[in-house]
Amino acid sequence: MLSRSSVCLLINGVRSYSTAASERVVGFIGLGNMGGHQAANLIKKGHKVIVYDISQDNVNRLKDKGALVASSPSELAKKADVIVTMLPASAHVKSVYCGDNGIFKSIKPGTLLLDSSTIDPQTAREVADIATKHNSTLLDCPVSGGTGGAEAGTLTFMVGGKEADFERAKPYLQAMGKNIVHCGDVGTGQAAKVCNNLVLGISMVGVSEAMNLGVKLGIDPKKLAGIFNTSSARCWSSELYNPCPGVLENSPASRGYTGGFGSALMNKDLGLAVDSAKSLGEPLPLGTTAHQFYTMMVQKGLGNKDFSVAYEFLQKTKQ
Amino acid sequence: MLSRSSVCLLINGVRSYSTAASERVVGFIGLGNMGGHQAANLIKKGHKVIVYDISQDNVNRLKDKGALVASSPSELAKKADVIVTMLPASAHVKSVYCGDNGIFKSIKPGTLLLDSSTIDPQTAREVADIATKHNSTLLDCPVSGGTGGAEAGTLTFMVGGKEADFERAKPYLQAMGKNIVHCGDVGTGQAAKVCNNLVLGISMVGVSEAMNLGVKLGIDPKKLAGIFNTSSARCWSSELYNPCPGVLENSPASRGYTGGFGSALMNKDLGLAVDSAKSLGEPLPLGTTAHQFYTMMVQKGLGNKDFSVAYEFLQKTKQ
Repeated sequence: MLSRSSVCLLINGVRSYSTAASERVVGFIGLGNMGGHQAANLIKKGHKVIVYDISQDNVNRLKDKGALVASSPSELAKKADVIVTMLPASAHVKSVYCGDNGIFKSIKPGTLLLDSSTIDPQTAREVADIATKHNSTLLDCPVSGGTGGAEAGTLTFMVGGKEADFERAKPYLQAMGKNIVHCGDVGTGQAAKVCNNLVLGISMVGVSEAMNLGVKLGIDPKKLAGIFNTSSARCWSSELYNPCPGVLENSPASRGYTGGFGSALMNKDLGLAVDSAKSLGEPLPLGTTAHQFYTMMVQKGLGNKDFSVAYEFLQKTKQ
Repeated sequence: MLSRSSVCLLINGVRSYSTAASERVVGFIGLGNMGGHQAANLIKKGHKVIVYDISQDNVNRLKDKGALVASSPSELAKKADVIVTMLPASAHVKSVYCGDNGIFKSIKPGTLLLDSSTIDPQTAREVADIATKHNSTLLDCPVSGGTGGAEAGTLTFMVGGKEADFERAKPYLQAMGKNIVHCGDVGTGQAAKVCNNLVLGISMVGVSEAMNLGVKLGIDPKKLAGIFNTSSARCWSSELYNPCPGVLENSPASRGYTGGFGSALMNKDLGLAVDSAKSLGEPLPLGTTAHQFYTMMVQKGLGNKDFSVAYEFLQKTKQ
């Protein structure tokens, strides 16, 4: 997702947040596997950070790194000029923003809200509308790059919001990520992520089915992958992440489907695509089938395995 | 599918067929949109060619180009040392090889049989087994590259058969194609083609669903395709053949889904994948759903449109 222009934006952005942005207080809510690293990177880049999380352990880790601590989202909102949230799902986002002790209870006018959770685009728009009523601005900024990218500060942010607000947000996002992509109006960041992972989730199952069928028909898997990768079956799932063990040396498939991107997370993202399509009345025949497939994998205990475990899931159980 | 090694093979092959191969008689059965061009290219490259087709018009076109004519596959087999077939489906292959006036009625021992039809791998193996009983050798050599590639002699051949037989076949295939890929034992050429098109057929519907959903969620289609192509949704169907009109200037989608690869042909190829998986007892959840989707498109009169018309098929009918 890195283009020459986004490299330029990065350079400009670094210059910008090292002047104006560092005077402001950045609130961070949701200090889990992703958010903990993101908050730490904001501190590292010189921002004054105040945090909140339901887990005291998570809070303490950030306190040790120099963060101030708030006792609720509402208390945090009183003190912060910019608030970043990184929460598991739509329900948590609604609660943290709109709940009894939520951000909107005591938000300051002009506050910039950056929600980097992955949720459905409709909820992102609803919360952004409420933010507007509080004279503040919410941008949806879901990420890709996983916990490794969060720790290294190399996340990709897909951002939905007005151009001018995107420019305001960029310095903070650049403290946590490398590629900051403006996708359009509010909600389009979530839409881009959901649609990207819709294609990815489908193509991984498709490649798994085809690799399995080809091997059963007698083709060597490396030979078959080679044909795919130089022909019209070429895709990220085959070329860089082939789900058949032994085809690529460094793929999750070649290390027992450990590491990588969990089936449960892919199941969640496809669920968002299914929800979005349903609420718009749009058809999603393959997306829905793929979602069911990942749901089955999660049911069978494969939720924590990399999503390329789809290939193994197609194999006959040894009895 | 072109690699450095296949370029070398091509050079070696040209040297080889310009000596030994030109002394032999090449039979060609099935002179349709693909086969007519292939037979013409064999003549152009100096081969002595004898043809058969059920259409007298097709036969006359090749006769005008210098081909000898046989009155049946059986009569052709009496005179040919090498026989190439290009037929619509498994039933035609069985009939032309094993029927009352079929090739096997009068085949000469040692005849090399090259079936470039796209059929199921099981039928390819069955016919190859019968060929062995007649002291002849059949290789499955399905193609990709379409009628344009057939005319230009730039087809890709995916070949299944023993290494030594592959070397014998190469000079003839190189007279009709550019990339000659050895996939493994007999049947694996068909398997490679079926599996490649299984991934392709699935990914085209997947990209269509995601482009449609994204646009309905408010993202600009070019922006969304750009995100896909630089991220984990990257695939041939999005990058080189995007199904959304206007994203790529020269795609079938941008010229009313004309030209390209017909939905009916993709429906046939996915049908072969479904048949193969069924006969082996292997699961094919997305492949089966995608096959149903193309069958619906054919039912609705879109069989002759390029298969990327999947995107248009997802749109609401104007009433």
